Amino acid sequence: MILGKVIGTVWATRKDEQTVGMTFQIVREVGLDLEDKANFVVAVDSVGAGVGEVVLVAQGSSGRQTELTKGKPVDAVIMAIVDRLDVDEDAVASLGE
Amino acid sequence: MILGKVIGTVWATRKDEQTVGMTFQIVREVGLDLEDKANFVVAVDSVGAGVGEVVLVAQGSSGRQTELTKGKPVDAVIMAIVDRLDVDEDAVASLGE
Amino acid sequence: MILGKVIGTVWATRKDEQTVGMTFQIVREVGLDLEDKANFVVAVDSVGAGVGEVVLVAQGSSGRQTELTKGKPVDAVIMAIVDRLDVDEDAVASLGE
Amino acid sequence: MILGKVIGTVWATRKDEQTVGMTFQIVREVGLDLEDKANFVVAVDSVGAGVGEVVLVAQGSSGRQTELTKGKPVDAVIMAIVDRLDVDEDAVASLGE
Amino acid sequence: MILGKVIGTVWATRKDEQTVGMTFQIVREVGLDLEDKANFVVAVDSVGAGVGEVVLVAQGSSGRQTELTKGKPVDAVIMAIVDRLDVDEDAVASLGE
Repeated sequence: MILGKVIGTVWATRKDEQTVGMTFQIVREVGLDLEDKANFVVAVDSVGAGVGEVVLVAQGSSGRQTELTKGKPVDAVIMAIVDRLDVDEDAVASLGE
Repeated sequence: MILGKVIGTVWATRKDEQTVGMTFQIVREVGLDLEDKANFVVAVDSVGAGVGEVVLVAQGSSGRQTELTKGKPVDAVIMAIVDRLDVDEDAVASLGE
Repeated sequence: MILGKVIGTVWATRKDEQTVGMTFQIVREVGLDLEDKANFVVAVDSVGAGVGEVVLVAQGSSGRQTELTKGKPVDAVIMAIVDRLDVDEDAVASLGE
Repeated sequence: MILGKVIGTVWATRKDEQTVGMTFQIVREVGLDLEDKANFVVAVDSVGAGVGEVVLVAQGSSGRQTELTKGKPVDAVIMAIVDRLDVDEDAVASLGE
Repeated sequence: MILGKVIGTVWATRKDEQTVGMTFQIVREVGLDLEDKANFVVAVDSVGAGVGEVVLVAQGSSGRQTELTKGKPVDAVIMAIVDRLDVDEDAVASLGE
């Protein structure tokens, strides 16, 4: 999944009829420090995420595994709203051997 | 989905017979300010989008979930024509905790 | 789909037996002006494309939706030979509202 | 698969109910020298990987082929913890002919 | 498919049990001149490729279409060992019309 921040909404009335009722959120990709990255993606919201909230987005066919998106022509879904990130950037790489 | 603008059409007579009758639109990727990006994609049009219109494109297997593209060898579909973008680039990232 | 130009062929005798008889074409990605881009992809030819011809390539699971590639371990297929591109790079972005 | 190093965890309580009980690990992509790369991905842990461990991540629909992730809206899974890398960067490219 | 060169092996004992017995090869992406590129991918070997051999790698769900990888949580497979490349970089782009 990618980490992102909801920054807005796309409105469309002429669209595939299977997508009627879906909310298309604009998700700005962010780093682990929550700073903006250059990319954004438009994702269907399956969890009620609001502007500013940090979220996880599942893409590709995985974006169609929620109840809302199953079998629909959409390739990205917000499937989690993030509460907290525990990050240790200094973790030393360790191999099993 | 990616955000793009229709800028033209690809014409092909020698093609997989399952794609006969489809319109292959050239979609220039655009930013949230609707400025052109470097990339473009060729996508099947399932919603009647014309040149200049801002659209959403679903890619990969999701591009095959419209009535028109189901089971067909195409990996991108225009599935919505955009009416409006509500964007708040200044939204502060907020975590649930 | 991506737009490309056939520039050669990959020959392989030791390969997954499901791919015997397929032609693996080397497709250089091109821009809308048909100028070369840096990337290339190796794609199965399902339409009889020759060197120099401009083609469309479908990737991922969509690359397996032709009669030739169904269920086979290949992730890119040439599914159309391009006759003409109609491009209007100056098209002004227009929103539905 | 991509090679990465677990550097932390994403906590989320509001999420697709099919993902309850999954651990979302933050995986920093690494090179063959185990040095950090710029990218990271959030992946479900199916093998009990801890911070610092070097892992393989399968993405896309392949991320849904573990017992834990089958049919779930997740697009990346840690499916192996790496013991050792045998690398010969100086290997001379050899063609079959 | 991407073109690559086998440069090593990843060893892992703690892994998804469906992947037991698979060989995870490290494949350095190469150009048409067989020079190294910056990227590498870890791919399951389905054709007995050795270090130095030039190979084709199929990715995504296509990586799961070999007998060895069907239904398994792996997203890249070596499905051909390359004998020869016929490349004409100077081929002039020709449209059907």
